[in-house]
Amino acid sequence: MSEYLSYEQSGVSIDANDRMVERIKDSVARTHSPRVINLHGGFAGLFSLENSPDFKKNYKNPVLVSCTDGVGTKVILAKEMQKFDTVGTDLVAMSVNDMIVMGAEPLFFLDYLAVDKLDPERVAEMVSGIAKACEEAGCALIGGETAEMPDLYSKNEFDMAGFAVGVVERDRIIKGDAARPGDVLLGLASSGIHSNGFSLVRKICFEKAQLGIKDTVSELGGKTLGSALLEPTRIYVQPIVKLLEQYPDKCPIHAMAHITGGGLVGNIPRVLPENCDAVIDRGSWDVPEIFKWLEKLGPVEEREMFRVFNMGIGYVMAVDADEAENISKKLAAQGQRVYRIGTIEPGGRKVKLI
Amino acid sequence: MSEYLSYEQSGVSIDANDRMVERIKDSVARTHSPRVINLHGGFAGLFSLENSPDFKKNYKNPVLVSCTDGVGTKVILAKEMQKFDTVGTDLVAMSVNDMIVMGAEPLFFLDYLAVDKLDPERVAEMVSGIAKACEEAGCALIGGETAEMPDLYSKNEFDMAGFAVGVVERDRIIKGDAARPGDVLLGLASSGIHSNGFSLVRKICFEKAQLGIKDTVSELGGKTLGSALLEPTRIYVQPIVKLLEQYPDKCPIHAMAHITGGGLVGNIPRVLPENCDAVIDRGSWDVPEIFKWLEKLGPVEEREMFRVFNMGIGYVMAVDADEAENISKKLAAQGQRVYRIGTIEPGGRKVKLI
Repeated sequence: MSEYLSYEQSGVSIDANDRMVERIKDSVARTHSPRVINLHGGFAGLFSLENSPDFKKNYKNPVLVSCTDGVGTKVILAKEMQKFDTVGTDLVAMSVNDMIVMGAEPLFFLDYLAVDKLDPERVAEMVSGIAKACEEAGCALIGGETAEMPDLYSKNEFDMAGFAVGVVERDRIIKGDAARPGDVLLGLASSGIHSNGFSLVRKICFEKAQLGIKDTVSELGGKTLGSALLEPTRIYVQPIVKLLEQYPDKCPIHAMAHITGGGLVGNIPRVLPENCDAVIDRGSWDVPEIFKWLEKLGPVEEREMFRVFNMGIGYVMAVDADEAENISKKLAAQGQRVYRIGTIEPGGRKVKLI
Repeated sequence: MSEYLSYEQSGVSIDANDRMVERIKDSVARTHSPRVINLHGGFAGLFSLENSPDFKKNYKNPVLVSCTDGVGTKVILAKEMQKFDTVGTDLVAMSVNDMIVMGAEPLFFLDYLAVDKLDPERVAEMVSGIAKACEEAGCALIGGETAEMPDLYSKNEFDMAGFAVGVVERDRIIKGDAARPGDVLLGLASSGIHSNGFSLVRKICFEKAQLGIKDTVSELGGKTLGSALLEPTRIYVQPIVKLLEQYPDKCPIHAMAHITGGGLVGNIPRVLPENCDAVIDRGSWDVPEIFKWLEKLGPVEEREMFRVFNMGIGYVMAVDADEAENISKKLAAQGQRVYRIGTIEPGGRKVKLI
């Protein structure tokens, strides 16, 4: 070893980065549509928004819709389980599910990964999860940054942030202001905890109940605790985008909400008109076992459970009562489990659980 | 304290988040242009790309240009110095400086902040730095996420990621392929280390030389080491965007590079045509004292210094030799210190330091 200090000795490997880029090339390329412009070694991702007959769809008055999110402390579970692709799915889901709430369809995605040490295998696993989810959401993965920071992250620790850009025609933005008393609230089933509330989950399971991630829990259908908790967030893009396309004129979908941190109680008011309440019948859907089990194990008050977790409903829409049945059928045909969970009533932008 | 576990007890405070949002509202609003669409409590940031006489500038064949980056372990220094606004500037600079390389102008920005504990004061300081830099770069801060993760980040630790979207007309993209032998390389002065190489900086200064951030270093003009190192990254958006506007037809700026990790040696080849070399005269500009001091203190080989740091040149452009003098003057008139650092010669996409 020479007496000179080099960047490699300070813990950052430029060559490992090159190897990783080589490894993820193909899965990234699969997400690319004809709108993606590929340049050698470019400093940025390029995505054409031109109008051209070459593209499947063109935009008259495009409004860009942009979201960013991480997956919270779910990354700690991924580290402990040594499973890195499903949090990649979560990362994409968190941003694209937020975006479709406005009536937008995703165009492209970028990721920021921060790791203690650039392990090409592990980063490739994360990016393959991200790329697979991008494919499902119909958005192009056009950029990303992997930062190797041994002084900031402990051994095997990492964090991730995602950025998504989509587009909606100006006169098709769903603002929520069309929701009105009498509207029916439809809820789409979640796949589990999704990506919020994991600090509380960890406190309940590992600190208080002293369980291990490899423990099998009979209430969770015999799955290990770790794999039940890591279940990736459902991506609602395809069913929602296709549903909206079926109403090119008057849209009976008046407001939508992605149920994240804050639960039904915290997220629905974000899109409610001032003079409306959402009245939700707690008995109208089956709360998945994992939430019942966490509530009992904590114990956690039911009110708090509804403030932190999605409780089985990952996405909510307020729709014209006359069209509710039709919409439910269309969503069910897309493989969604849909519940009629309540109604909009006159009020003051509150959620009432009855 | 009740026997029930709550989210607040697990270390995440939803109320602190609300207080923080209140605090940053004004500095964020100042970055907004008429293209920003503000909706109550929306799930996403909205930015209109419509053509309308209401907007200062419209786009015929818009290509979106998107970048993401962090500031590396510079965040550790910020934590130690308890100064959180300048890394916000760095965050914006890293992405927007990458974007202008393609000839794009920034439109909007989103940030992801990950903290151990949501201290509204501290996060507001970060966001105010981000917002100020967005104003300077002419882009709207339309979204962000602040994640409170006490289990992932140690006390007072944090990380940040930024995401910028800009636009360039299809026929104005600067791909670098127009660079050719005979072109002059112009270098724009950096403000210091910018946001790369901090793992090596920390190893040199704190591990090996055992200096403290409050130590005054005579070679650095009597500044404390911490404040010299924290000097924010220069934002090159205004001078470059204005320069490009002055060449509406044939553009004499053939290639540009933002000098980040990898230095001049690593970044210039990213935009060079295959059959060109960049020949750089190391004596053509004044290497700032901080690099000379780090090189000696390490010691670090000069070759390695050029592979890790910008060495005083933060941005490079290959321009038509006939126009080089004019371009230098135009950039100097915008307050930039410009050096003629070399030429493009026939070769194989290499950088030769002579």
